Amino acid sequence: MRAFMDQDFLLNTECARELYHEVAEKCPIIDYHCHLSPREIYMDIRYDNITQVWLGGDHYKWRLMRSAGVEEKYITGNAPDEEKFLKYAEVLGNSIGNPLHHWSHLELRRFFGYDGILNAKTAPEVWKLANEKLRSPGYTSRGLIQMSHVDTICTTDDPVDDLIWHEKLAADSSFPVTVLPAWRPDKAIDLDKLSYVDYLRELEKAAGMKIASVSDLKEALKRRLDFFAAHNCSLSDHGLDYVMYAPAPEEEVERIFKARLENVMPTPQESAVFRFACMTFLAGEYHDRGWVMQLHYGCRRNNNPVTFRDLGPDTGFDCVDNTAPSTQTAAFMGALEDMGKLPRTILYSLNTCDNAAIDTILGCFQNSEAVGRIQHGSAWWFNDHFDGMTDHLRSLASLGYLAGFVGMLTDSRSFLSYPRHEYFRRILCRLFGEWVEQGFYPDDMETLKKIVADISYNNARNYFRFARKN
Amino acid sequence: MRAFMDQDFLLNTECARELYHEVAEKCPIIDYHCHLSPREIYMDIRYDNITQVWLGGDHYKWRLMRSAGVEEKYITGNAPDEEKFLKYAEVLGNSIGNPLHHWSHLELRRFFGYDGILNAKTAPEVWKLANEKLRSPGYTSRGLIQMSHVDTICTTDDPVDDLIWHEKLAADSSFPVTVLPAWRPDKAIDLDKLSYVDYLRELEKAAGMKIASVSDLKEALKRRLDFFAAHNCSLSDHGLDYVMYAPAPEEEVERIFKARLENVMPTPQESAVFRFACMTFLAGEYHDRGWVMQLHYGCRRNNNPVTFRDLGPDTGFDCVDNTAPSTQTAAFMGALEDMGKLPRTILYSLNTCDNAAIDTILGCFQNSEAVGRIQHGSAWWFNDHFDGMTDHLRSLASLGYLAGFVGMLTDSRSFLSYPRHEYFRRILCRLFGEWVEQGFYPDDMETLKKIVADISYNNARNYFRFARKN
Amino acid sequence: MRAFMDQDFLLNTECARELYHEVAEKCPIIDYHCHLSPREIYMDIRYDNITQVWLGGDHYKWRLMRSAGVEEKYITGNAPDEEKFLKYAEVLGNSIGNPLHHWSHLELRRFFGYDGILNAKTAPEVWKLANEKLRSPGYTSRGLIQMSHVDTICTTDDPVDDLIWHEKLAADSSFPVTVLPAWRPDKAIDLDKLSYVDYLRELEKAAGMKIASVSDLKEALKRRLDFFAAHNCSLSDHGLDYVMYAPAPEEEVERIFKARLENVMPTPQESAVFRFACMTFLAGEYHDRGWVMQLHYGCRRNNNPVTFRDLGPDTGFDCVDNTAPSTQTAAFMGALEDMGKLPRTILYSLNTCDNAAIDTILGCFQNSEAVGRIQHGSAWWFNDHFDGMTDHLRSLASLGYLAGFVGMLTDSRSFLSYPRHEYFRRILCRLFGEWVEQGFYPDDMETLKKIVADISYNNARNYFRFARKN
Repeated sequence: MRAFMDQDFLLNTECARELYHEVAEKCPIIDYHCHLSPREIYMDIRYDNITQVWLGGDHYKWRLMRSAGVEEKYITGNAPDEEKFLKYAEVLGNSIGNPLHHWSHLELRRFFGYDGILNAKTAPEVWKLANEKLRSPGYTSRGLIQMSHVDTICTTDDPVDDLIWHEKLAADSSFPVTVLPAWRPDKAIDLDKLSYVDYLRELEKAAGMKIASVSDLKEALKRRLDFFAAHNCSLSDHGLDYVMYAPAPEEEVERIFKARLENVMPTPQESAVFRFACMTFLAGEYHDRGWVMQLHYGCRRNNNPVTFRDLGPDTGFDCVDNTAPSTQTAAFMGALEDMGKLPRTILYSLNTCDNAAIDTILGCFQNSEAVGRIQHGSAWWFNDHFDGMTDHLRSLASLGYLAGFVGMLTDSRSFLSYPRHEYFRRILCRLFGEWVEQGFYPDDMETLKKIVADISYNNARNYFRFARKN
Repeated sequence: MRAFMDQDFLLNTECARELYHEVAEKCPIIDYHCHLSPREIYMDIRYDNITQVWLGGDHYKWRLMRSAGVEEKYITGNAPDEEKFLKYAEVLGNSIGNPLHHWSHLELRRFFGYDGILNAKTAPEVWKLANEKLRSPGYTSRGLIQMSHVDTICTTDDPVDDLIWHEKLAADSSFPVTVLPAWRPDKAIDLDKLSYVDYLRELEKAAGMKIASVSDLKEALKRRLDFFAAHNCSLSDHGLDYVMYAPAPEEEVERIFKARLENVMPTPQESAVFRFACMTFLAGEYHDRGWVMQLHYGCRRNNNPVTFRDLGPDTGFDCVDNTAPSTQTAAFMGALEDMGKLPRTILYSLNTCDNAAIDTILGCFQNSEAVGRIQHGSAWWFNDHFDGMTDHLRSLASLGYLAGFVGMLTDSRSFLSYPRHEYFRRILCRLFGEWVEQGFYPDDMETLKKIVADISYNNARNYFRFARKN
Repeated sequence: MRAFMDQDFLLNTECARELYHEVAEKCPIIDYHCHLSPREIYMDIRYDNITQVWLGGDHYKWRLMRSAGVEEKYITGNAPDEEKFLKYAEVLGNSIGNPLHHWSHLELRRFFGYDGILNAKTAPEVWKLANEKLRSPGYTSRGLIQMSHVDTICTTDDPVDDLIWHEKLAADSSFPVTVLPAWRPDKAIDLDKLSYVDYLRELEKAAGMKIASVSDLKEALKRRLDFFAAHNCSLSDHGLDYVMYAPAPEEEVERIFKARLENVMPTPQESAVFRFACMTFLAGEYHDRGWVMQLHYGCRRNNNPVTFRDLGPDTGFDCVDNTAPSTQTAAFMGALEDMGKLPRTILYSLNTCDNAAIDTILGCFQNSEAVGRIQHGSAWWFNDHFDGMTDHLRSLASLGYLAGFVGMLTDSRSFLSYPRHEYFRRILCRLFGEWVEQGFYPDDMETLKKIVADISYNNARNYFRFARKN
């Protein structure tokens, strides 16, 4: 029997252990998609206690606690931090099979040097130990990042953002990590949101122009794209229900947009038409600037109206949307390719049933522009667990070219989440080790090590072509 | 090599064996969803031979025999019972990988003390042995239930049912098992069934009132809900194509209903509108009474028109319906929550591709009302096999809180089906054992045993809050 | 650790090894669905080098190379054959987890006696060795077939085909392999193709009659069915987006068809109506003739407009279509059964998420006409890999009667693809071995061997009822 989460956690073959410890473990991290606050990085913030850093904004943990019947006051309410921690520890102790059980223990091991098991019994000792650590030197936002061997971070930023913290970070030579903005223009596209017109006012201000037509909107977005590019942004990101194909004449798009300006809400089909028009335009811009386009879809957000009123978005009330037609995704990509405007693209669906559809769509648009020009993004969000990552890797290997995969990201709001890269790399090495052990792939350590290093680091470096700080 | 289905069947680690034999095996059974006849329980019936008890109404076995090319006369036809048994045994012997192969052997071991292999060769000896047993004391409907260590059974009952057998069972102190009705009002909702108006006549009689409007229908259902509650019912159940979200003004619902009374059949969209209105009303009633709501969906029934004419429903001609949009399921739950009317709910889809969607929908509606307030029901019907149960458990663990799961049910029409609980518990212990063995979860037998006991028994006890007979 | 792809490749238990080496390995091959050219078989063609035979028309390999960023000139372009081979070898060496890695090595072992590993380093030596072999006696299209122990091949043929090469092959007593045509009438049904009316002209010529109405079309198809039957065809095949149920009055079908003759393109719904009418008619014809109907669906083809213009269809730009409603598939089958016209049918979906839906649809239409009257075809195309085949077998076993499965086919355009049968058989034996090893199925080698032989060969022989050449 293996010990619980020791240094060979997940590494069940000699081959896996060698690949992980000699290669994967040593690779730096390119965290090309996350939700960290550039302000919090710049300000080099500290945390009073582990509840604040661990449970403060982590809706994964909140969901788990609610599922175990914990009262909301211990979750987002005003119970004392220590009680919140004890509740979480109690639930975590019983959370067999949940990725939080692994993530939390990896974080305790890597950041707090705690090799034990967190549960109701050990919670007081962990509370004490972790808080002591948090008071020691280096336990700041920047320190946690550097401790994790991160070399590049891409945050997620709105077109209207002034990128002031990115500017400061770029100018701060004392911090060697490259922190780049990523362009996430959902608010400019989500015509069916109640706040859409208000958002346009913000965009007008940021772009320094009036927006009265679709061509104005495009011009404003272009100006902001230029502004982001001037801050070394080369990565975009979209949150979509599904990747749609809904072509319509320009006048129709204009009509839908102008109606919205007069507060006539679009039908679902009109929303799709407008989104498709915007996505087509933006994809072309990304292509022309050499940016990468990320498409995140298959999610239905804010499903609980009661908690949405109380707590707002991103508080743990989202679910898988299983209605994305792969035919439209393929048609969207095909339309872009036909115009010579398909950028390097990463597809992520929250619905793992889309894995094979995505992995076969990739194959339709690959060419020599890049190894893995079109990518299937790492198992996203709810799927970011042992089975989800394993399934993603096996599907990509079976249907595509796994060796060209750009690898892991945290997608996180927490400075403690970097061990998810470790988790991913261990799973990758485990899979390779099992294949070699079973005679499915040659025991050719040189090639295996190269592939592991590529997926852990080099592929992302080559694919994204990020400007480096140093 | 492990022996075929010995006492350690499925238990491939020391941890699994300890968890099963010291805990799971000893837990009583709460069979909270089945299709047993309360009359047959009360009457304490006997069976002439194993064909009658085993093959009499078991459409799982019928399907398997038809798939192997067996003539219908040996299945539902008039071949002699012994010949039917021999045919089944022959097919079963070749049914590698089918859950019936495991279920049948578990039943032979537990009820008939037969440790061998059933196939064409051994069929005559098993026929003799089983029939002898069936003639011995205790081999009656009640005896088989008690032999199986069952403490609570919920049957499936129509709102018009007089619950006379439930009343008799409740009054019969010689039978210690709690047998409760469960409310299944599909016929009151299925506006698109040809027999709908006839059914309303039955409902009128049972409720003692005329039904000429939707509000009459609601009132009639309320009366019957009260009647069921008076018989200790606290559990409902629905069979739906999918869980729909189709809001419409009350007058529209009324219009659709009244048209149907005049034999104008609804369009599919009108059916959805009517069903949504009924489901919303009933869910609110369940909520207010503290009942649990079960939603079974993702099934298309009676696909073979020829055999439907010959044999009727529930004879083995149903299949998976893969068209359920998770967005509507989430919206239905959200609408109920918004009204403060969402009852504790169990979701079951026949389409295992819905697992992740369901497991993430759960998380949107959990709170401190109960541990696992919203549940993902155990792998249902066609999925009630080794892979199906394992996938269900792994998905629930990865995306939710497995330790709060209310566990297994038989969903069966047979008094011999209780070993499905054993099968489930062995699979559960196997999974836990593998996780511990691999260092994925601590070797903390105290916690593991508690979780196993909870999923096997305690969670269902706490969640359903059934009235107990004794 | 097992050696890489030695004689016991995939056979990880004693049971698996015995089943494979004593039974599966010795069974001849019935390749009931492929895309070989009967002309190329008859002409007994030779290849100049391994690039021509291996990379000439193999879009699986092309996709993999594009995914690895290889330039098109080394794929379908005019780079020298040797350079193309070196590029492929280089990519293949890194293609961990891809079925081509296994297929290619199986082909090198079986046809070229090469037991090493193909990669960038070994490519020159393999190039030399393989080309030498290709120059030796027996390395012709016929020779490769015979080397592979094939006894029956079904090609894929259009209704307008004159079947001249089939006629010649049937008459050629020097070639002992039975080569039969299979009827693939997609072009007669695809009303929405631009070339539809031109195709009708070809069909008119082949059938010797004018086609001005749907009944003319049916009559023409009947004449061609008779012609195919006269050439011992007893197998049809359809490529569909999904299996639709779209009934409409005959006049409506006629209206849609006649509009198309006048170049009015159908709406998607009209296309579905027309296809459903054609499929219903053809299925009845197959039924009456005792033919088997194959339905391939869940594919979206030619997704890249740029490469489609350059390279045409079947060049590696297809993907999974995830929008097939199982309800319509079931309704289509039910409608046929209701008319007494449902032929023996094999369902294949490119979307593995349809596995359970298909396996439960089968069960609705099984009867004593045949063991496994309705079949779930072997993991198709993109799914024809280790996980895909394993999942298919496990799903079929769990939900149906695996012992009645008609087994593997190549679906290939290459004379070197027969080791895919070996791959399948090894995976089958592996699965059986694991089940036995774990005590899931009795260690009854007699029954196991019979089932393996049946799935490898006998079931296909019995199910298809092909005329044999010898």
